[in-house]
Amino acid sequence: MNDLFFSPNPDVRKIAGELYISIKDMPILSPHGHTEARWFAENKPFENPTDLIITPDHYIFRMLVSQGISLDDLRIPRRDGSRADGDPRDVWRLFVKHFFVFAGTPTGLWLREELRSVFETDIPLDETNADLLYDHIDACLKDPRFYPRNLYERFNLELLSTTNGASDDLIWHKKLAHSGWQGTIIPCFRPDDVTDPGRPDWRENLRKLSELTGEDTECYPGFLKALRKRRQDFINLGCNSTDHGVESPRTFTLSASAVEAVYKRAISGRATDEDHRAFIAHMLMIMAEMSTEDGLVMQIHPGVYRNHDKNMFHGYGGDKGADIPVRCEFTQNLKELLNTFGSHPDFKLVVYTLDETAYTRELAPLAGYYPAMLLGPPWWFNDSFQGMKRFRESVVETAGFYNCIGFVDDTRALPSIPVRHDFSRRIDADFLAELTVRGILTRRDAETLMPELAYGLTKKGFRL
Amino acid sequence: MNDLFFSPNPDVRKIAGELYISIKDMPILSPHGHTEARWFAENKPFENPTDLIITPDHYIFRMLVSQGISLDDLRIPRRDGSRADGDPRDVWRLFVKHFFVFAGTPTGLWLREELRSVFETDIPLDETNADLLYDHIDACLKDPRFYPRNLYERFNLELLSTTNGASDDLIWHKKLAHSGWQGTIIPCFRPDDVTDPGRPDWRENLRKLSELTGEDTECYPGFLKALRKRRQDFINLGCNSTDHGVESPRTFTLSASAVEAVYKRAISGRATDEDHRAFIAHMLMIMAEMSTEDGLVMQIHPGVYRNHDKNMFHGYGGDKGADIPVRCEFTQNLKELLNTFGSHPDFKLVVYTLDETAYTRELAPLAGYYPAMLLGPPWWFNDSFQGMKRFRESVVETAGFYNCIGFVDDTRALPSIPVRHDFSRRIDADFLAELTVRGILTRRDAETLMPELAYGLTKKGFRL
Amino acid sequence: MNDLFFSPNPDVRKIAGELYISIKDMPILSPHGHTEARWFAENKPFENPTDLIITPDHYIFRMLVSQGISLDDLRIPRRDGSRADGDPRDVWRLFVKHFFVFAGTPTGLWLREELRSVFETDIPLDETNADLLYDHIDACLKDPRFYPRNLYERFNLELLSTTNGASDDLIWHKKLAHSGWQGTIIPCFRPDDVTDPGRPDWRENLRKLSELTGEDTECYPGFLKALRKRRQDFINLGCNSTDHGVESPRTFTLSASAVEAVYKRAISGRATDEDHRAFIAHMLMIMAEMSTEDGLVMQIHPGVYRNHDKNMFHGYGGDKGADIPVRCEFTQNLKELLNTFGSHPDFKLVVYTLDETAYTRELAPLAGYYPAMLLGPPWWFNDSFQGMKRFRESVVETAGFYNCIGFVDDTRALPSIPVRHDFSRRIDADFLAELTVRGILTRRDAETLMPELAYGLTKKGFRL
Repeated sequence: MNDLFFSPNPDVRKIAGELYISIKDMPILSPHGHTEARWFAENKPFENPTDLIITPDHYIFRMLVSQGISLDDLRIPRRDGSRADGDPRDVWRLFVKHFFVFAGTPTGLWLREELRSVFETDIPLDETNADLLYDHIDACLKDPRFYPRNLYERFNLELLSTTNGASDDLIWHKKLAHSGWQGTIIPCFRPDDVTDPGRPDWRENLRKLSELTGEDTECYPGFLKALRKRRQDFINLGCNSTDHGVESPRTFTLSASAVEAVYKRAISGRATDEDHRAFIAHMLMIMAEMSTEDGLVMQIHPGVYRNHDKNMFHGYGGDKGADIPVRCEFTQNLKELLNTFGSHPDFKLVVYTLDETAYTRELAPLAGYYPAMLLGPPWWFNDSFQGMKRFRESVVETAGFYNCIGFVDDTRALPSIPVRHDFSRRIDADFLAELTVRGILTRRDAETLMPELAYGLTKKGFRL
Repeated sequence: MNDLFFSPNPDVRKIAGELYISIKDMPILSPHGHTEARWFAENKPFENPTDLIITPDHYIFRMLVSQGISLDDLRIPRRDGSRADGDPRDVWRLFVKHFFVFAGTPTGLWLREELRSVFETDIPLDETNADLLYDHIDACLKDPRFYPRNLYERFNLELLSTTNGASDDLIWHKKLAHSGWQGTIIPCFRPDDVTDPGRPDWRENLRKLSELTGEDTECYPGFLKALRKRRQDFINLGCNSTDHGVESPRTFTLSASAVEAVYKRAISGRATDEDHRAFIAHMLMIMAEMSTEDGLVMQIHPGVYRNHDKNMFHGYGGDKGADIPVRCEFTQNLKELLNTFGSHPDFKLVVYTLDETAYTRELAPLAGYYPAMLLGPPWWFNDSFQGMKRFRESVVETAGFYNCIGFVDDTRALPSIPVRHDFSRRIDADFLAELTVRGILTRRDAETLMPELAYGLTKKGFRL
Repeated sequence: MNDLFFSPNPDVRKIAGELYISIKDMPILSPHGHTEARWFAENKPFENPTDLIITPDHYIFRMLVSQGISLDDLRIPRRDGSRADGDPRDVWRLFVKHFFVFAGTPTGLWLREELRSVFETDIPLDETNADLLYDHIDACLKDPRFYPRNLYERFNLELLSTTNGASDDLIWHKKLAHSGWQGTIIPCFRPDDVTDPGRPDWRENLRKLSELTGEDTECYPGFLKALRKRRQDFINLGCNSTDHGVESPRTFTLSASAVEAVYKRAISGRATDEDHRAFIAHMLMIMAEMSTEDGLVMQIHPGVYRNHDKNMFHGYGGDKGADIPVRCEFTQNLKELLNTFGSHPDFKLVVYTLDETAYTRELAPLAGYYPAMLLGPPWWFNDSFQGMKRFRESVVETAGFYNCIGFVDDTRALPSIPVRHDFSRRIDADFLAELTVRGILTRRDAETLMPELAYGLTKKGFRL
């Protein structure tokens, strides 16, 4: 694995290796992701290789689906909680049989290196070794070294954030807070469950929010009070950021009377689609405003059309690999938010994109101007060698390195976390080395930047 | 030509060369293109170098037009069939005089290598050699080795598809079927002539379609019956795919009454532009449905604004180099088609694009999910070194290699076919070699993938 | 600096160096930019390092703003002409203290090389040297070698164009014309001040235009006459181009009555936003038509949303780093202009873009077809190593090299001019060298192209 990702050019490779070695053992900050606090609160062994590696990872099973394998063949849980009959080992065999289709994908590389560095085996991922690998991983999982808290420590994590709805009771985070364990597992406040009145479970989530806060969420002022209280609850458990998954990053403030009217229509089930969109845009403004008060870093993950495959959604629910990006505009959409809060000294906004066309055209120019705005690293489909390369090549010249945060793994695949951060560090080392050999950076520039990209910019950007 | 396109890095170059050598003599599959069955049915020598190389190739003459040369200077046939007076040799001289403007373009490279490998000459393409080259090629054309069937065999073609309208009588394909010649020249069913009621020749094409099938194409049900019959006629002549050249890949099903109404308005010449667009979107759904019945692989080539230069169009007609790409959206547009047929086991959909912004944002995520969807290779303006590089760099990480088909030449320039496939094989070898040296692929991965990219994926994707 | 930007690969580097050396001393053509004729007319020393390097350069201060530094800290003049109190030396110190944030940006590189090659010092740009550098540059500025005319000569400039509104009296250009100095400082005719009725100063500019021409600009025919006269005034002072900074490159001709009506509404302050947009689109057609008469090369710089940060705009006015690009469509928008004038033998249109998605999809296909159309080089945020690489990689294969003009610095930072041109020459040399080593260009192709890219294509494109 030593030279993985590094340039074929020996001069670049040498410098990349030296830069990488200088930071490869720095602690890992994971300020945004989708692991579960419960794992660490309970600290029980993971069930089996399939349920650890395949079942929760839509990066993996979407590719298998593309090859004609059904979610039932993979025993992915259905919407009603049931699951096709079968043996997890058979699912593993099916996966390994098709592992060749992952050639050249980050998913394939993560797994290859995860086996090597986390599960400490060199058995190649091919059909003939399916059982051998299954047994090896299965044996690992029973070893306390592979219990969640021990993985956290072995991975050299300094902080790990989960993602939680505003109506989440945070029961596992509370237990962790009183557990005496030294790991830092914090929640991120993601209020999409209550800020999007178009969700089928919106009313139910409002009800939970009301229960958790004692506020009347049937009216707009009560709703705002409840959100303020909940943000504080999250902060009390270490939370330092919010996150907003919106189809469009449109932002604007509805007048007091307009927002009351929209809220009433939504409560009574008479809101239009445009009401929903307007309310979401308005709530982004409100969330930014609250961030200027309580200091939570605001993140926006926009531009995904969720559950493109309706049959699959009806059978298996969300987050099943059928989310597809759409075009995403930032210059006009973020205008009101940035005009109002973009120069506020107590505000930080981290913007991610799946629409790479916005890198040079909109995002780097915006981040290279507004003090509050920072660019998030390549996300999801672009969390990859080429994706990171395109990101750096596109944004650095206009936004500089210092208007970006460092790597964010954004994953639900716990054992992949150290590998993902390692990849990012390698790819950044290679990028800096290439610029150094070309004379664009001095060696000293590169040496100063390397730990910033690996650690410092995330720490600063997320105010850790 | 030995190392053409290969990386300057010696390690990459070495592996690229080895990969390339391992497949360079594999047969060529050309499952989509614009050569003419007549050439092979008649098997007569081509007229002269100009009429073979320049007259039919809008890649060439559009660039000459951009330098201020008129289509009459190049003796391109006018819409009325007439042609400016003059000597084909003078046209050739004019072209060779301006050949320097093709530096760095695929057109320039194709021609350079075509001269070397097809016409077996090293005379450089510059002004002083214009006559020498003309005479050399002219002499070649009179040699039976350069007759169409012999070229097919010399080029190691295994299959060559032409493209034909639904109202085409396929007379030349029928003659070929009874000719005893072993070459495989098949038609591709491209019903744009009858599925776009906005075309000036629509009614005339419907009439031909009616004649060919005996169905009443003045009514919608008869029209559908005629299409089904025609698909079968094509299949009987070896056809295994359809193709659809649409400005937008919008897909949706009109209700039974709506489509009847639109069809009636179209027949009576009272259809609106939106009627035309709706009918085209509806017919994509119908064509997909018929494909699930008869197994024809469906291809979509969207996103071109045809005949941008109206004066030129009035004087010389279509396909004269004045077609310009426009933005193209896939996530929303293909939603209905993919929801309905994207998981159908008997359906294959190959999608091409000229809008490269859709690669990472829309097309790779879609192809990496839906079993029926495959990505076509870079097309037209992007059938080039940089275009292929961008394609692989953009789509492989999300869609993998196995959700793409192999190279498609899509050309009307017969002597360029082996060169185009050779370029694609070289560029893929270079891409795989670079990933190998970077440790992203193992050498074994690269060796497994190479023949798939050169041959296997096309064979599978087109069900040959 | 010797190998700055060149490939890490020794073969490419060697050829790049040889190509670069062959042209590095060619004269500089600067056919479009934002320096001031007054500097050369007066030929007085520049005030101090801060007012030369920082105050006018929004590339620099926007990045400092992004780090939380205020425009008052930087003593940027306010809209009312006032300026925060303070010492230019303190501004310089603040800048140098933050210079590390420019790592990897063109702005950082320009300055680094400007110090070396223009100010002839190797003192590194870091905090400890702030005063040393200030004193060094300050001493230089007092030296006649650094007076504007001497810089022009030392920089080997052959021509330098300023940019001037239609209502500009061109007083400094006139003085220069009678000064006896041999430098060529010409104006570029940029009539946005009078062709956009949505500008707050439109009426005022019309009044000036009327004064300068004696025409009645309150009516549309008088307005056109005034424009014709002004174009001639500019031409009399050496002008050879126009420029149009429009948000959208939409072009179409209003009917005679429609344009009269729009003009009247605009004059009476009752025009709608759509009136403004329609008039701008119409005036692009008129300007193209006048170019066919008087031979001025037409430039379009579209796709920027100006003054995104409204607070900043109210306090400090335009051109303060808060302009952000937006999506830009060309295929449909330029259709009427290109259909009408795109094949006119006396017309040249140079199109720039900040929306790189249009390179392969729209701009290269258009420029590779229409004789009148040429592509401008990467502009503004994309005037950078990666930006130039993406430009060449994206456009050459479809448009060739010969449908582009050479480098345009478009700068108000006089001492950066030779450095910017040098960078472009180096990056082009590297691009040609890489293609040569890959076998795509012959060495002879590369040697022929190099002086064209450095000098010839601009000379031809701008008809100098």
